[in-house]
Amino acid sequence: MNDIPHRDPTAMSDPNRPFSDEERAGLYRAIYERRDVRSQFLPDPIPRPVLARLLKSAHHAPSVGFMQPWDFILIDSPEVRQQVLASFNEENAKAAQNYTGERQQTYRSLKLQGIVDSPLNLCITCDRSRGGTHVLGRNSIVDMDLFSTCLAVQNLWLAARTEAIGVGWVSILDQTKLAGILNLPDNVYPLAYLCLGYVNEFLDQPELQAKGWRSRLPLEDLLHRNGWGSGVDDEALLEQLKQ
Amino acid sequence: MNDIPHRDPTAMSDPNRPFSDEERAGLYRAIYERRDVRSQFLPDPIPRPVLARLLKSAHHAPSVGFMQPWDFILIDSPEVRQQVLASFNEENAKAAQNYTGERQQTYRSLKLQGIVDSPLNLCITCDRSRGGTHVLGRNSIVDMDLFSTCLAVQNLWLAARTEAIGVGWVSILDQTKLAGILNLPDNVYPLAYLCLGYVNEFLDQPELQAKGWRSRLPLEDLLHRNGWGSGVDDEALLEQLKQ
Repeated sequence: MNDIPHRDPTAMSDPNRPFSDEERAGLYRAIYERRDVRSQFLPDPIPRPVLARLLKSAHHAPSVGFMQPWDFILIDSPEVRQQVLASFNEENAKAAQNYTGERQQTYRSLKLQGIVDSPLNLCITCDRSRGGTHVLGRNSIVDMDLFSTCLAVQNLWLAARTEAIGVGWVSILDQTKLAGILNLPDNVYPLAYLCLGYVNEFLDQPELQAKGWRSRLPLEDLLHRNGWGSGVDDEALLEQLKQ
Repeated sequence: MNDIPHRDPTAMSDPNRPFSDEERAGLYRAIYERRDVRSQFLPDPIPRPVLARLLKSAHHAPSVGFMQPWDFILIDSPEVRQQVLASFNEENAKAAQNYTGERQQTYRSLKLQGIVDSPLNLCITCDRSRGGTHVLGRNSIVDMDLFSTCLAVQNLWLAARTEAIGVGWVSILDQTKLAGILNLPDNVYPLAYLCLGYVNEFLDQPELQAKGWRSRLPLEDLLHRNGWGSGVDDEALLEQLKQ
């Protein structure tokens, strides 16, 4: 699986050549078959050429003012991961108290992280001071640097999916403690803590959907035209959404 | 261009079938050849089947606790777009004052939006109250809903690229004014204001890079291992990053 030859992704051919059907299908497959993986990790290491492609994909995300505010902290140390897991356990115990009865039972039955099961953790950070005081495009919305870093996360997540690598985003962490564990400077925010690894399977639907935690919302209910609450009365478009 | 047949992207085949070389190349092409488009828009309308695929791609982004906090406001009204453009012009005039001399001249020479040149604007919002008080995974990091919405933006951006549709994110807007123009409820944040349309070309590198505003950072300078500032001394990985 690791030795499949592939085109050099950084060699940009003609950017105006239309995508082939199969290239386009590849993008859509990655989008639809991507999962937030917590339980299916295999211990096999991620080969360096694959890891390099994932990091380069993240680095080619859009960023406000070409700020590129991200850094990538590769975490393989068992000691560091145990510290992160301890923060997760603490936050997760608090979170469970938000639910009662059957809902709490369901919550407690969900596995929400693969910190030590996955062969590699990756923290993608956002350096809020990068590019100096005035970053082009960041004058009105100061959080555009955080948003840009999210786009890098999604690039990596989708690239990983095409490489058969599962990714899980662990959001049940105290970011101040996490910053301490990783020795981050004050201006650097630990935006995404990810677990990465090959998996024994990709589930055919999101786990929270399969387990009845929450359903997918009908997309047509989320559409508006020219302002909130107007709805969209374009029958042809609504029909296409169902396909 | 609009009539290219394609596989039904929602028909999930076997999620554990490895991606073909070409499928994988398609994802990487989308990542590397995606641009933040401001100047190259054509007026041609986006066909509904294409628009539907873009919206579905966004809707299949990961979201914290399967919260799906996004809504999609399609904006084709010239009046609404003129109001948004007026907010852009006001904010952009303020932003230009942050620079002096040659840098200000360069700033003023950059076209930073395609609000009225593109055939469609799309505001992707984040409903901060969706899913109730306790959203799974959102107890420690309350902004996970905003971050999830960013992931939806990137799904749409990449899908658009494979469909030969350019996307530009306009971040130089007063979000309070924008919320007013779009009649958003108090709990709904206008996360991303996007311009969409076919283009006369995709530039071969980011415009801010081509115009000397800012350079791409060397990826190897952004890597750390197990903690900040450690660097990564894995020569084999560093070699791969250069390829």
